[in-house]
Formats: sequence, C-alpha cells, structure tokens
Amino acid sequence: MVDKEQIPATKAASPKEEQQSVTAEVQVQLGDRSYPIYIGHQILSHAHEILGPRIEGKRILIVTNEQVYDLQGQKLQQSLEKVAATVDVVTIPDGEEHKTIDTLSTLYDAAVEKNLERSSLIVALGGGIVGDIAGLLAATYMRGIPFIQIPTTLLAQVDSSVGGKVAVNHRKGKNLIGAFYQPQAVLIDSETLQTLPSREISAGYAEIIKTALLGDSELFGYLEKNSQAILQLEPDALRHTIAACCRIKAAVVSADEEEKGQRALLNLGHTFGHAIETLTHYQVYRHGEAVAIGLVAACRLAEKKNNLSSQVRERLIKLLYAANLPTQFPNFSRENWEKAFSLDKKVKSGKVIFIIPQSIGACQIHKDRDLTIALEVIEELSVNP
Amino acid sequence: MVDKEQIPATKAASPKEEQQSVTAEVQVQLGDRSYPIYIGHQILSHAHEILGPRIEGKRILIVTNEQVYDLQGQKLQQSLEKVAATVDVVTIPDGEEHKTIDTLSTLYDAAVEKNLERSSLIVALGGGIVGDIAGLLAATYMRGIPFIQIPTTLLAQVDSSVGGKVAVNHRKGKNLIGAFYQPQAVLIDSETLQTLPSREISAGYAEIIKTALLGDSELFGYLEKNSQAILQLEPDALRHTIAACCRIKAAVVSADEEEKGQRALLNLGHTFGHAIETLTHYQVYRHGEAVAIGLVAACRLAEKKNNLSSQVRERLIKLLYAANLPTQFPNFSRENWEKAFSLDKKVKSGKVIFIIPQSIGACQIHKDRDLTIALEVIEELSVNP
Repeated sequence: MVDKEQIPATKAASPKEEQQSVTAEVQVQLGDRSYPIYIGHQILSHAHEILGPRIEGKRILIVTNEQVYDLQGQKLQQSLEKVAATVDVVTIPDGEEHKTIDTLSTLYDAAVEKNLERSSLIVALGGGIVGDIAGLLAATYMRGIPFIQIPTTLLAQVDSSVGGKVAVNHRKGKNLIGAFYQPQAVLIDSETLQTLPSREISAGYAEIIKTALLGDSELFGYLEKNSQAILQLEPDALRHTIAACCRIKAAVVSADEEEKGQRALLNLGHTFGHAIETLTHYQVYRHGEAVAIGLVAACRLAEKKNNLSSQVRERLIKLLYAANLPTQFPNFSRENWEKAFSLDKKVKSGKVIFIIPQSIGACQIHKDRDLTIALEVIEELSVNP
Repeated sequence: MVDKEQIPATKAASPKEEQQSVTAEVQVQLGDRSYPIYIGHQILSHAHEILGPRIEGKRILIVTNEQVYDLQGQKLQQSLEKVAATVDVVTIPDGEEHKTIDTLSTLYDAAVEKNLERSSLIVALGGGIVGDIAGLLAATYMRGIPFIQIPTTLLAQVDSSVGGKVAVNHRKGKNLIGAFYQPQAVLIDSETLQTLPSREISAGYAEIIKTALLGDSELFGYLEKNSQAILQLEPDALRHTIAACCRIKAAVVSADEEEKGQRALLNLGHTFGHAIETLTHYQVYRHGEAVAIGLVAACRLAEKKNNLSSQVRERLIKLLYAANLPTQFPNFSRENWEKAFSLDKKVKSGKVIFIIPQSIGACQIHKDRDLTIALEVIEELSVNP
C-alpha cells in the first residue's frame, strides 16, 4: 500500500487547475491486478489527464443512472471524449430492486450494440448499485474487459468501489450472483457528494465508522473530533477520511482478495445488517443504516462473548447519533431472524459468521452454530422490546 | 505439465477394479489454480475414490441434461453419494439455443433452492454446453464456488472441459457472456463415448486433428495410422489421443490463461468455423464440422500468405475424409461473410485474427484488416462456386 500526497493531475497546471488536482493516491497491491485510487476535489473534468493511457484511443461505455448523468455525466463524458475513440452512455434504473440479471441483460445488449471489443472499457459512474452491476458486466462481457470505477456516493467512495466485489441480486439473496473482478483504477471526486441527500451522506458515514472500528483507532479518534466537518462535506476532512478508509480497505483486500480469510473482517456489522435488510425487504433502511445497527449489535455481542468494554459501544453510539443513524433493531420474531441469518452468503457448514471487536481498531472472526446469544442481543437492542 | 501413467484409482484394487482405473493423469499448471485431468476407462463409478477430498462431506449439485443423466447420471450419483453430504441433480435442455442467460437463471434458482454454500461443489456432467453453462454458474454463484468437469463427449474431453473457458451465448454472438474460471479437476471416462452418435465422435475428432496440426506432429502421424481405432473407440487409442490433446491444451493454457497472446493459437480453424456457424445459425453444422472446414481454409490461407506446402492440406483433407467431416464452405455472399467476421470476439481494433499453420505442429497468429484473401479462400473452397 503506497500513499502519495499532493500529486498534481497535470504536469503544467494553471493556478486554477492546481486546486482541482489529485491530492491523495492509494495503491491496491494485487500483483498484476494492482491499481490506483485517485482521490481529489473537482477532478471529474480532468479524468482524461488522470487516467491517461487507460482511456486513450479506447471505445468507452459509461454505465450510470439518469439522475447521476444529469448531475455529473456530461462533465465526465466531455473529459473522456478528448482522448477516447468513442464514448457512449447507457443508463440503468435506480434502486436495489433493479440490480438484477434482467438489468444486466440490457447492459449486454448495449455493449453489443456499441460494438465493444475485448480491449474496450466500461466506466461505472454512480453509487454502489451502478458499480456492482457495471463491474459484473465488465467481468463477464467477452470473459472480462477493463473497467474503471468512478463512485459518486460516500458509501461507494469509502467502500464498495474498492476491492473488486461485483454482483447482482437474486430474489432469494443479495449479491448472490457475482465475481471478484478488479477495476483498472478508481477515481474519487469528493465534489460529487455535494448534491447527495443528507441521508445518503449519513449512510456512507456508517461505513466510515465501521472501517475505523475495524482497523484504525486513529481514524476513530479523528471522527470523534471531526464528525461535523465530514458531514458538512468540507473537502479537507473528506480527503483525509476517504483516503484513510481506502488505505484500510486496500490493505485487507491485498492480503485476501477472494475472502478466504481475513477479508471477512470487512463484514463487521454486516451479518446483523444483512438480516435487517432481508427482513425489511431492502425497503426501510439504507444499507449503511442497517450496518449502523449491526455495529452496535457486534459490540454488544463482543461484550457477552469477549468482555469488550461497554465504553466502546457508548463511543460508537455517540458517533452514530451525530449522523442521525439508527442504533436499534426493528421488531421481528426470533424465527424470522434465524431464517434471515440462514440465507446469508457468510453461512459456512451451517455456522453463521460474526465479526466482533476486541478493541477500537481490532476485530476478530467468530463462527457460531448456536445463535442464542446473537438473538439475545437483537432482543435487547430492539425497539419496543 | 506432469504426466503419470498407470495410477490406480484405489489403493487396494481387486483384479476387476484394476481395469477400471485412471490410466493417465495430466496436470494443468496454473499456480494456486492448478488442477489434474484424470483419464481412464469405466472410471465414472469410481469418481468418489479418484476425486477424494474434493467431494468428501460436500453439498454437490450435478448439472447435466436428461439424456446424459439417463445414460451416465446414476452411476456418478451413486459414487458421489458414498462420501458427499448431499448430491442433487438439475437438468438443462439440450442444444446450443438453450445455452443462454435464461437457462443460467434457472440454475441459480436451483443452487439457491438446494442451499448451496460457498464451500459447495458444482459438477458438470455432459458435453460442452453443460460444461460451459455449469462452469459459468460456478464462476458467478456467490462470487465463485468450486466445480469439477466430467465431460461425456469427445469434443468436450479433448478440448472444452480443459482450460477454464465458461460462457453462455448472447443472441448476437456465441460465448459473448462468460469468464475464465478453472475447475478443481477434470475426470474423463472414455466409456461414456460408447453411446455417442458417430456424427458426434467425428465432430470431436475434428478438434483432435486441429490440436495435432496446431502443436504435435507426432500426434498427427499417430492419427494418420490410427484413425479407425479412434473412431471405433478402442480404449487404448482413445487414452493415448485424449491424453495427448489434454497435454497440448494444458501447456498452452498454462502459458496464457486469459488469452492475452499464445492461447489464441487454440483458435486454429475457428475464425472461419465461427463465421460458418453464425451464418447457418448453429443449425446446420456441429461445431467440430465447422472447425473441419475452417482447418482446410486456414491451410489454404497459409499457402497464399506463407507459402505453406499444399501437401499439408492434402494430408489434412485425407484425415477429415476418414471421419466423414466436411471440407467445403456453404454458399453465402461476400457481404455476409464480412459481417460474420466482424461479430467475432477475436476482432481487435477492426482486425480479424486468423491462426495459420507454418508446418504440421506449428502455427502462428495472423491479424488482418483486409479480408480480401480470406474471402478469396472461402470462394475457392465453397460448394457450387
């Protein structure tokens, strides 16, 4: 993992352009699949300079949704058109319910129609849904063609755009159909966050808190001091936070690309979170909101299993409150929770995998066949218990 | 590439079982994705002994079609059931027209219904269509679960089951949606060929001839002497020939897993062959038959481009005749051929890739933007020119 600060996007930048430069670069080390994450403010219209040979002379298909295209698409398209052979755009409908094989099929049609070849490039411009489905398109069109992630939500910038997990949903389970397929680069422009609803910012912030709790006590401390600056989207605070999250994610992914071991740590809060999403049919909570509740539960589980100090949970809840994130479970029967856990991809030979904190910045993988204590935690932390 | 002859499938084999043992093993060297190809006669009912820890205690889903299941399925299922946790079977309809995303979707449903986990196993039992679609299921279910190829056609045994190419068709192009995903093992029982129609045997034989012309002049000589023994399915001749083909394929795949260079050599005869299949909508020729015509065309192209001796083509045609394989193109307009070439996955920046022989056992990659000579060859070699 390499970290370079203050790398200008252009060699001869004008004073105005200097502000619009890449201010952090994080490298994901994966041998011949290594790639850089470029992080900056107002860099979308400089994509062609930053991405250089990855786009020069290529046929490019930008996958996005209409809302994102209206806000950010033209800026990116005009930049890419300066050096690419062709730049086409295809939009998909927004919403988790459209992250399906059917939508993916329409993208295969578009790729064929635009005469994409093995050497062409898919660019994903949008949040996690766009990134996941465009990534799976790239992974499976002609057995894999290059792609670049340009995440435009906080959640995607700090988490889903890095690490090569691409997927669509099956009606019986989220992300059940997918692949590990690394992008050639990730380009993060924090200016794209300015148009996001505050609920989206908070949902992304939950993954930032998760990342800090998981692997960076310094970042946890930084969040406790700078919550408001981040939530108000101050560029310096965003750059520091996004780069810190990408660094941790990159280190975990480099060590275990295909989640055979330690990468499972990134699922901190997610076993509970996915169960919440499954039971509420992805209609009630944003992903990050479900994870927020899951983080509280993971701490409580660690208190029971590992004697984690309850102070950790108190500090966590304080951070979550600051972002208006939920901390209590919705009400469902014990049987419903059990069924939701059994459908999780993380189930292995009937055992459910929970990630539990040992301290702020250090977690461990915990497998359990007996869900008694997890169900106790849910009951304790439910609204109207 | 390792080659071990006469490895018994069991430690304490009875005299009867000794005949039913693995008689050749070829290793595909791909670092941590390396895997063995076991080749033998009457070994299907010993699958549990040969595959050992790869199946012990696993949940297994056998993907096959009804006809193959009726002939071979129970033998395999009973063997696997001796050591697996569960063995389920799902069938798909036969025929290239069913190698689609829609059929793949029914397999995702089956995998979910049978509670397959990340550690479960997909077993592909059948020809190339079953292997391709079951492989893509394995590659993309939960971002990739283990699978084993058990090819039951000659074509699949000498070619498609080895090398990790998995795919389904798009209506605009064959194998347009797919991945590179290696099996954990390939198990080849030459007894399964006994029930194949002779046209299928011949179609597979075309790929054997291709492999010899491509990379093994000794095998080419062996075929000239032993055509009838192979076509009459004599076990020794089959073992020798299948193992030789697997060895060549393994060497090419080991050197270039994702077809970034030399693996393209395996497409000898296929640029012409795919164009024939496209124009006849996969209804007239078996894949191997189209490749047979393509091999003749590749030689003729090499005569024009590289001064290849016409004797090579004469020896090739003699081998093809012996197996009742076609050697002449069907009649289509020049425009139709051009359009068919342009849809090929092997097109790169507008150039069509042809593999042409330099001598028996050695070929080279040839890229051409100008199709004049290729179209001349087609015209020369067409029926009713």
